[in-house]
Amino acid sequence: MVTEFAQIEVKPGMESAFIAGAAKSRSLFLAAEGCFGMGVQRSVEEPHKFLLMAQWESVDDHMVTFRESPAFQEWRDNVGHCFAAPPVVWHGQTVI
Amino acid sequence: MVTEFAQIEVKPGMESAFIAGAAKSRSLFLAAEGCFGMGVQRSVEEPHKFLLMAQWESVDDHMVTFRESPAFQEWRDNVGHCFAAPPVVWHGQTVI
Repeated sequence: MVTEFAQIEVKPGMESAFIAGAAKSRSLFLAAEGCFGMGVQRSVEEPHKFLLMAQWESVDDHMVTFRESPAFQEWRDNVGHCFAAPPVVWHGQTVI
Repeated sequence: MVTEFAQIEVKPGMESAFIAGAAKSRSLFLAAEGCFGMGVQRSVEEPHKFLLMAQWESVDDHMVTFRESPAFQEWRDNVGHCFAAPPVVWHGQTVI
């Protein structure tokens, strides 16, 4: 099990559109092979910055199976126009 | 309720010492006023990078009450020597 962390910076004024698009996309993640959860945090200090966290069975379930699926394209169609920059994506494993 | 995110980069070779020090410190967080949980993720892609996540009742419970307490000093005594750079700390609120 790994957690995907996607740091997403949103264009000024697009915060609500991003949240709506991400909420609409949650079911795409939950229906994806190997995905067990998805949520989004918004920065208190810099409210145009968000952190998507999704739980996957493996890095490949996210980076290969999901990214090559139509669901990934749909996710990007829902929120991509809100991005101020390409998201910074990494994966974490629980150590504590 | 807010989540503290502390991005921590550890000196080469100090990864195990950091994990041990953070594990030992978990009880300091859990005993702190307004703290509801603490965990640490390790990056798959860059294993010297970690993300501490702690749940707090408020930003002040973390940044004022905890940071000014002896428990914070104990936490830093347990892990500070492992840091390659000052941690990058921010707080998030759940939007999805």
